[in-house]
Amino acid sequence: MSDRYANFANSGPGRVLVKRLGLPNPPMLRRYRPGDPLVRGPVLVGAAPGGRIEGPVRKMLTVAEVPMDGGPPWSALVFDATGVTDAAALHPIYEFFHANARALAGGGRVIVFGTPPAACASPREATAQRALEGLTRSIGKEFGRGSTAQLVYVAPGAEEFTDSTVRFLLSGRSAYVSGQVIWIGQVSSSPLTNWARPLEGKVALVTGAAQGIGAAIARVLARDGASVVALDVPAAGEALALVANEIGGTALQLDLTRPDAPSTLAAQLLSRHGRVDVVVHNAGITRDKTIAKMSAEQWDAVVDVNLSSQERINDALIPLLPEGGRIISVSSTSGIAGNRGQTNYATSKAGVIGLVQSMAPILAPQGVTINAVAPGFIETRMTARMPLAAREVGRRMNSLSQGGLPIDVAETIAWLAAPGSAGITGNVVRVCGQMWLGA
Amino acid sequence: MSDRYANFANSGPGRVLVKRLGLPNPPMLRRYRPGDPLVRGPVLVGAAPGGRIEGPVRKMLTVAEVPMDGGPPWSALVFDATGVTDAAALHPIYEFFHANARALAGGGRVIVFGTPPAACASPREATAQRALEGLTRSIGKEFGRGSTAQLVYVAPGAEEFTDSTVRFLLSGRSAYVSGQVIWIGQVSSSPLTNWARPLEGKVALVTGAAQGIGAAIARVLARDGASVVALDVPAAGEALALVANEIGGTALQLDLTRPDAPSTLAAQLLSRHGRVDVVVHNAGITRDKTIAKMSAEQWDAVVDVNLSSQERINDALIPLLPEGGRIISVSSTSGIAGNRGQTNYATSKAGVIGLVQSMAPILAPQGVTINAVAPGFIETRMTARMPLAAREVGRRMNSLSQGGLPIDVAETIAWLAAPGSAGITGNVVRVCGQMWLGA
Repeated sequence: MSDRYANFANSGPGRVLVKRLGLPNPPMLRRYRPGDPLVRGPVLVGAAPGGRIEGPVRKMLTVAEVPMDGGPPWSALVFDATGVTDAAALHPIYEFFHANARALAGGGRVIVFGTPPAACASPREATAQRALEGLTRSIGKEFGRGSTAQLVYVAPGAEEFTDSTVRFLLSGRSAYVSGQVIWIGQVSSSPLTNWARPLEGKVALVTGAAQGIGAAIARVLARDGASVVALDVPAAGEALALVANEIGGTALQLDLTRPDAPSTLAAQLLSRHGRVDVVVHNAGITRDKTIAKMSAEQWDAVVDVNLSSQERINDALIPLLPEGGRIISVSSTSGIAGNRGQTNYATSKAGVIGLVQSMAPILAPQGVTINAVAPGFIETRMTARMPLAAREVGRRMNSLSQGGLPIDVAETIAWLAAPGSAGITGNVVRVCGQMWLGA
Repeated sequence: MSDRYANFANSGPGRVLVKRLGLPNPPMLRRYRPGDPLVRGPVLVGAAPGGRIEGPVRKMLTVAEVPMDGGPPWSALVFDATGVTDAAALHPIYEFFHANARALAGGGRVIVFGTPPAACASPREATAQRALEGLTRSIGKEFGRGSTAQLVYVAPGAEEFTDSTVRFLLSGRSAYVSGQVIWIGQVSSSPLTNWARPLEGKVALVTGAAQGIGAAIARVLARDGASVVALDVPAAGEALALVANEIGGTALQLDLTRPDAPSTLAAQLLSRHGRVDVVVHNAGITRDKTIAKMSAEQWDAVVDVNLSSQERINDALIPLLPEGGRIISVSSTSGIAGNRGQTNYATSKAGVIGLVQSMAPILAPQGVTINAVAPGFIETRMTARMPLAAREVGRRMNSLSQGGLPIDVAETIAWLAAPGSAGITGNVVRVCGQMWLGA
């Protein structure tokens, strides 16, 4: 569950050896601890002429008491490219990153803002805006030293709704998120947000919460102020109770594949909490076999637990969700790229993406968002059991040269669950350190 | 320019050594030669209940004289999943591939047909259809021995317009295309197609045609019946003339970055050929440097040649394109995933995707399609100069364990250029052997 090599490579003697032998050099990631400032130093903000986002972002950084001069070194390079309407006008972006790439501190952040290509006024503008994806992903692979890079597409009219996302991306909460494209749309109103405890007063359900990523999600949502209902199968009851007790939440033992599980769950949430605001579908299983060797039971169980049960539970819980409700499903990079020996798992996790994308427009009118996170290589008991070679490939083949931690997935979910993330729906955000393995 | 290891591994002594030492074992790919039948043996067609595609595909295979019984071994496994309206109903797909995975011959083909999620009647159906992507990509990684796997989404009403795509995917023309999702939409009419020489009577412009991938494109389009106008910069005039003479085409020396290049090109095409039907934007350059070390000239030149010049030429040539016209742009997997040291190149190649996606709906009313192909690791003079380690990573990190050849890119372009591909527009098809390196 720990990355001994990374720990060693960051020790005194380890650093020397790693450098001499040219071994991979995974940087220690800057992760959030309560009370941490958003960033450790000043942020440099640049813009191409005519941008819509620079003003609101500067205002937000001022409110958050983030210094915007005094560098280098810069803790983040933020560029507003929404003013770019033609490929030739991408030049100022080159100038900005050319001049400042070396002045970004270790663990730094790169955020590029653009306009969603579909919202652009001309094909020339859409083309230039789409080009930003190639730039940002290349920067993510190039800058190194634990830095991350993302492209944030902000729909016209949504300029004031980026705070939650900028705060997440600048902070240590997004340590293992890199190379992502995030889409922020217009919302009718932006609720006031308590940035220290954004989920205060919310009831959050987390399935599969007894251990690993699910337990981390429960802990982080509770840290952020939520009353957490931690759910897992009865067989995991003991571990579940420990998690629930630790975070002052409620344990709920339930087998989600039972036909009456959705109605039982809805009834329990209403009777014990009177509401549910945030639903996190984390419960999932693997039954890895090549499809030639896979039994019908192995296929059906994975599809049912990982996908169909999410659909059935949504049917029962969506009517209970208030305006501002949130659904977050855990997908997987295997669902995006496919994986040998995981036809069942990849099918179910690709289906989760379909679920999120097809439900987002249906839920939008009631002010409910639905998103997916797709973890890459995360250090868990499951990955600790992988063969050494496969584990090392998974760990090192990403822009951060290391696996992520369960808390990295949990922080990403907490960001999407926050009231300030109202403009984000139908997104799939990988938590994979910009994993190089795709398809 | 050749993969000596792959040649060795497929020799008699090589096969023994590769097996004993557990070395990578790149299969010899089945590539198309004129006169080849579509497949070497019978094709197995399956369907989930209620599918729309099985009937038309069986009819097409019958017309093409492809046997549908007599196996195993099967040369292809084709499954119509358009009838699946719920994740639980994915089970017949598991049954089909579970039962027949081992009966697929080496160099076999897997094609799964689905309904575009956005065209589905319910979120349940959209979810199940989206899940097919995880299945197909996993199969691509799992089946091995030079086999490929694709997912083809067919819009309702487009069932009769799949012939061109099925023929391409079954044949040796698609040898290096795997793990792709192809979208076929409705078209007003399906022109009769001469499958032996689909481009008979068409005039095709190929930029950057003097060598490498561009020369291969010129050759394949000529083989398929087109009158090819092979264009390159004056400095490449000698090589260009050789290619043009070889294929009975016309050589056109022109620097596409000159301001008058688009109008000159349009005038030349009209005066010498009276028309242009197919435009292939292949000309491209690299100027690799990390952005901190990259000069402004290196940024600007790559964006201008690879992206802006395509836009300017389109402006001049689109008015000339008749109904049935085709534009095909060469993008790159670097434009999709980003690449260290290629911020300029990846920006330009991501922009090409934006160009294709933003222009497709604008060109649709005039019956013109626009698509991109994105080559992965292709054996060219450029990749032959790469350092050994990087070259071997690029070559082996894909589901076919080898680099592709220029002809693989050319065949994919020829498929998109064919009259029968009228339903395909706004697509980005990678020619990368299902490269594992993504983002």
